[in-house]
Amino acid sequence: MANIKLVLEYEGTNYYGWQIQPNVPTIEGELQNALARILKQRVIITGAARTDRGVHAKGQVVSFKLSLSFPVFQLIPALNSVLSPDIRVKRASQVKNAFHARHSARYKIYRYVICNNFVLHPWLRNFSWWVPFPLNCKLMQDAASYLIGRRDFSSFENKGSPFMSPVRCVQKIKIKKQGSLITVSIKADAFLYKMARNIAGTLVEVGRGRFSPLDVRNFLLTKDRRKAGPTAPPQGLFLWRVGYDRDIFDKNSW
Amino acid sequence: MANIKLVLEYEGTNYYGWQIQPNVPTIEGELQNALARILKQRVIITGAARTDRGVHAKGQVVSFKLSLSFPVFQLIPALNSVLSPDIRVKRASQVKNAFHARHSARYKIYRYVICNNFVLHPWLRNFSWWVPFPLNCKLMQDAASYLIGRRDFSSFENKGSPFMSPVRCVQKIKIKKQGSLITVSIKADAFLYKMARNIAGTLVEVGRGRFSPLDVRNFLLTKDRRKAGPTAPPQGLFLWRVGYDRDIFDKNSW
Repeated sequence: MANIKLVLEYEGTNYYGWQIQPNVPTIEGELQNALARILKQRVIITGAARTDRGVHAKGQVVSFKLSLSFPVFQLIPALNSVLSPDIRVKRASQVKNAFHARHSARYKIYRYVICNNFVLHPWLRNFSWWVPFPLNCKLMQDAASYLIGRRDFSSFENKGSPFMSPVRCVQKIKIKKQGSLITVSIKADAFLYKMARNIAGTLVEVGRGRFSPLDVRNFLLTKDRRKAGPTAPPQGLFLWRVGYDRDIFDKNSW
Repeated sequence: MANIKLVLEYEGTNYYGWQIQPNVPTIEGELQNALARILKQRVIITGAARTDRGVHAKGQVVSFKLSLSFPVFQLIPALNSVLSPDIRVKRASQVKNAFHARHSARYKIYRYVICNNFVLHPWLRNFSWWVPFPLNCKLMQDAASYLIGRRDFSSFENKGSPFMSPVRCVQKIKIKKQGSLITVSIKADAFLYKMARNIAGTLVEVGRGRFSPLDVRNFLLTKDRRKAGPTAPPQGLFLWRVGYDRDIFDKNSW
């Protein structure tokens, strides 16, 4: 019984999010079907994050147990030949038995992409939030600094979250401007429901001058979701990376 | 009677190219319909380049005569509210009467995008050519240097071209690598039919070692299309920019 870790990229546009649901296409459902097709058996897979409908991934991580002696190095070409081109497997490796895509995760990075241009570039329409007015990135970065640390993020959590505690540790928020593209990258130990999109939506309000950086500090303190900015739309969000300890790989299997 | 110049961006994926044809969607057809809708009259438009099916544009230029007194600055929001989001008007200006999008063009730049990665990133699948083997950009740039100058490009012209002379002046070819993205930008006074894609297809053969840079010089001399490399697929190509003289604008209209 081998424990397998996959890393996936996907465009979320045509899926109802990660989590499997009856009668609608989901990333988890597509991957489970693809695995069933090549392994001739059903496996139960775990994703590191349950991305929402329309959200993309550059580094979603999946783990599952494999009872067959299917060669790990053949998983990538086999799965990619069966999956639709909007889902790609980019890494496959055998990991220690204790590895679990979600529980073993040390941090996650989400990246939010803003098209800050007079018109929305056609090639970015499924991959960014179109914000056509000027944004002050310096103010956005100042506001973001108040969100760093272990804090109660109730003001940035939407209802429907399965988590008990609203405390999360945000390690870094980086705002970068390249031409008409602005990216907001957020690294945290874990994220509350819609937390990345609520932070992005709030920082855009700061960038356009509706909130000051100090307002953002106050939003945290009130612990009231209604105070902070709107939830940014899903198509700008990428699950960028999930980080683990270095010693997860099963060296005996090589 | 005002002479109008528009600059467009579009994703060509869902269109049968620029040129209007019966019963299929084309960029020219969509733009002509949008203009008819907002101006309540049919206008005849001229595009600087007839991009092929699946080819994109970041800077297609269009000109047409406008008999109505429709305010030029309202053309952008009016057209964009009517056009599908995969076509955007990004500039509109009144130009001198002699201006013609195609005849007045001094140069064109096409950019060809290659996804040079083990897997094809889902978000690039409609916007790049997936080349999964290593490419030597230095050799590609060396080969490109033989194509610079006023030369007979018969070896890089597909049949079906409406042009009489196969002589074109290529001013610059720049190959750039950024992560897994390789771009080939070609600046010329004008392009023969599928010339940009034939140059890109040939340079990729050089990059993977099938042709040497010197072979490319010889392809030019043979003037035989069958000698040079394959036509690169359309989805990697962008009409990047069309250049004109600086004095095209009609200052009296301001």
